[in-house]
Amino acid sequence: MEASEIQAVRADWLVTPTEHGTAVLRNATIYWGKSGKIIAIESVDSDRSPSINAVLSEEANRDIAVLDLGAAILCPGLVNAHCHAAMTLMRGAADDLPLMDWLQKRIWPMEGELVDPTFVRVGTTLAAAEMLLGGTTTCADMYFYPEDAARAFVSMGMRAQLAMPVIEFPTRYASDADRYLALALEARDALKGEALLSFALGPHAPYTVSDATFQRVVAYAAELGLPIHTHLQETATEVDESLAKHGERPTKRMERLGVLSPDFVGAHGVHLNAEDIARLAKNAGNIVHCPSSNLKLASGIAPITALTKAGVNVAIGTDGAASNNRLDMFEEMRLAALLAKVQANDASAFPAEAAFRAATLGGAKALNLSKMIGSLEIGKQADMIAVSCDAIGMNPMFDPVSHLVYVASRADVIHTWVAGNACVIDRALARNAHQRLTDARLQMAEFSDRVSTLRRA
Amino acid sequence: MEASEIQAVRADWLVTPTEHGTAVLRNATIYWGKSGKIIAIESVDSDRSPSINAVLSEEANRDIAVLDLGAAILCPGLVNAHCHAAMTLMRGAADDLPLMDWLQKRIWPMEGELVDPTFVRVGTTLAAAEMLLGGTTTCADMYFYPEDAARAFVSMGMRAQLAMPVIEFPTRYASDADRYLALALEARDALKGEALLSFALGPHAPYTVSDATFQRVVAYAAELGLPIHTHLQETATEVDESLAKHGERPTKRMERLGVLSPDFVGAHGVHLNAEDIARLAKNAGNIVHCPSSNLKLASGIAPITALTKAGVNVAIGTDGAASNNRLDMFEEMRLAALLAKVQANDASAFPAEAAFRAATLGGAKALNLSKMIGSLEIGKQADMIAVSCDAIGMNPMFDPVSHLVYVASRADVIHTWVAGNACVIDRALARNAHQRLTDARLQMAEFSDRVSTLRRA
Repeated sequence: MEASEIQAVRADWLVTPTEHGTAVLRNATIYWGKSGKIIAIESVDSDRSPSINAVLSEEANRDIAVLDLGAAILCPGLVNAHCHAAMTLMRGAADDLPLMDWLQKRIWPMEGELVDPTFVRVGTTLAAAEMLLGGTTTCADMYFYPEDAARAFVSMGMRAQLAMPVIEFPTRYASDADRYLALALEARDALKGEALLSFALGPHAPYTVSDATFQRVVAYAAELGLPIHTHLQETATEVDESLAKHGERPTKRMERLGVLSPDFVGAHGVHLNAEDIARLAKNAGNIVHCPSSNLKLASGIAPITALTKAGVNVAIGTDGAASNNRLDMFEEMRLAALLAKVQANDASAFPAEAAFRAATLGGAKALNLSKMIGSLEIGKQADMIAVSCDAIGMNPMFDPVSHLVYVASRADVIHTWVAGNACVIDRALARNAHQRLTDARLQMAEFSDRVSTLRRA
Repeated sequence: MEASEIQAVRADWLVTPTEHGTAVLRNATIYWGKSGKIIAIESVDSDRSPSINAVLSEEANRDIAVLDLGAAILCPGLVNAHCHAAMTLMRGAADDLPLMDWLQKRIWPMEGELVDPTFVRVGTTLAAAEMLLGGTTTCADMYFYPEDAARAFVSMGMRAQLAMPVIEFPTRYASDADRYLALALEARDALKGEALLSFALGPHAPYTVSDATFQRVVAYAAELGLPIHTHLQETATEVDESLAKHGERPTKRMERLGVLSPDFVGAHGVHLNAEDIARLAKNAGNIVHCPSSNLKLASGIAPITALTKAGVNVAIGTDGAASNNRLDMFEEMRLAALLAKVQANDASAFPAEAAFRAATLGGAKALNLSKMIGSLEIGKQADMIAVSCDAIGMNPMFDPVSHLVYVASRADVIHTWVAGNACVIDRALARNAHQRLTDARLQMAEFSDRVSTLRRA
């Protein structure tokens, strides 16, 4: 590789999860090539786990221009493992309501009026901008018109996994489960060559999808090698209703239907008991913790300490901006670490390293992308962010991992790279993405007038 | 008053608590005079509670230059009702430990080595900068060397209430309870003419202060008209030990000793039962909710819905940066609203308006300053912030109160005024404060080296 094809960035700190711990390097430089792959990581000194180090030859090194960020932390981009990006257009449109009222009385009726390909393209563009500026480089998105969402993510330069929706009831997008599945396969066929995209099947939830449809989803997922991403045991009501209707808890039903596997992604997992947790562990399933949304809808707090102890991989997600109301993975990471302590009645529960891992490598594992992203290692993609240590609120700093989780906010993110491409430069979107955002903001105005009218109705 | 002595600022929205609700004004302009007092609030249109409106005569109006902020929300500055500002120098120095280990094994030994007037001046200066930039205009501070802390707040242009410490055990600052009390009275005498300062007596906690000392504190407080600010029932252990040692719960003991009154400020109040809450209500006491710190130390979640229902005034605080690890009232306000919902198992609990009120007027009431600050009303001081609506993450917006609590972060604060003086202008500290911060940052480096050494010991 020619030196001119290599990019490099240096910062006072580099922090990354590794397979067996957390690496904290001082005075680190990371190099990547045109393919977006990391080719070397240099560090003058390491606090922990120096095993990921590698050094370029002196010759190659000399001609490479290194962007020096000084007092900053380089780390993997955050992975938002559960989102409904387009719902950004309904941010704060229905607050302070419990899940089923929120969903049935407010969100579903609004969606019925508003959601079409333009809504999805505009809402997803806004969401991608918010996430990239805030240090999120990958989003697992579950929403109608996934092909339009996917094109919006790609146009913003963001990595996404589309969990293509399947639900029994008709919407403007599709009339029945067959049609949802057909549209899912079409969307994947149209876009499967895009390097930034991956796909999953997204049956909405055990309480909205029949056994027969789940079985078809499982068959397609196996045939095409796709993960299955569904809402799981978000509320106590959902569990009670499943016991009444199916005579079994949703997680047991998912196991019976063959849904549980290492490629299973269960969002929320708030009301999981010991039996559910054991079942998820046995099948090597993944749970996405969405703390803000679960608090705001009074759903509860997912038992992430118990899940982690049982060996279940825990990822973190924002959920949509209609229930959060931010797409801010720094906020979710902090909240995950804080809530776990009160839940477990143990101040050492889910320490900073665990929360950081869940928001990066945990997310990559849940989406079956951990060979490509989730940590900064040679051979992986340069999906990476730089967090400034300049703000007075970031000082002093004794441990960069603690600061990433408990102190930093998305406002401290100064650069974001996806597959080695700079998407955010000095806190601003790169030129193309900025132009697309400007266009989307103009269209946002029209949708927000319509949402305002519906809120008053 | 000459027009040249009047300042004015306009924004698309003005939001303030009032005695009986929340006022939301559109296209609002606020005017204040040299004394720092608000003299008029104009609004083209109001969503709710137009009762605070008042209009200047056309003549006066014409000559006043109005700073137009466009898409922004003007609201009262946030009141941090419980902090240990100087502990900023120990930010993140001891994480993931329960309260008593954190305090006895890590914080108290570090404080023994480090805390002197310089430490307090430097740490408080850093804290004031962080808070002003983040939209906090008043801080209730409890720490050693309160005279040095007070001078640091004044030099930064920030309003503060010094809860002057009283504790039984000796520190470098004072040898015994008598000496703490004597130093408290000296500090107040030296500084009582400062317009930005007010004073309280700060007996550390029921478990560190004797009955006899509490009685002396009560006598001095009555004589001098000072609030009493103490830590109250932060942990379950504290309650158990009080039952064992005194045969009564700490709140009952406080009542017996005459500590409870409308001028009583109890910080934390995590482990309050129905009896404690009734006692606080009967005596019109105040509780400061510190959600991040209470989660991080696994202390629990204060019952703020029950307190509010009983009529107890609830304020919000950050606690110190050694247990939070941020001095970020936006974060605490959001967390207060979110946690209350799961705690009460009710998504409508502690809605956005309640959290916003607690972080502003609730704080002012707790500190006995509500005649002067806590809301934007004619005759009150212009302690005020402007929150930008420009960020993509703040859009769209359907309700500015919801967005202030659930969406905005301190990074959205663009201007901060205390007593009508601009302390933060376009996200930067005013010139004098900036210079003082620059000096403090140089001194911070020396202290953080010493903290690093102590952490390794």
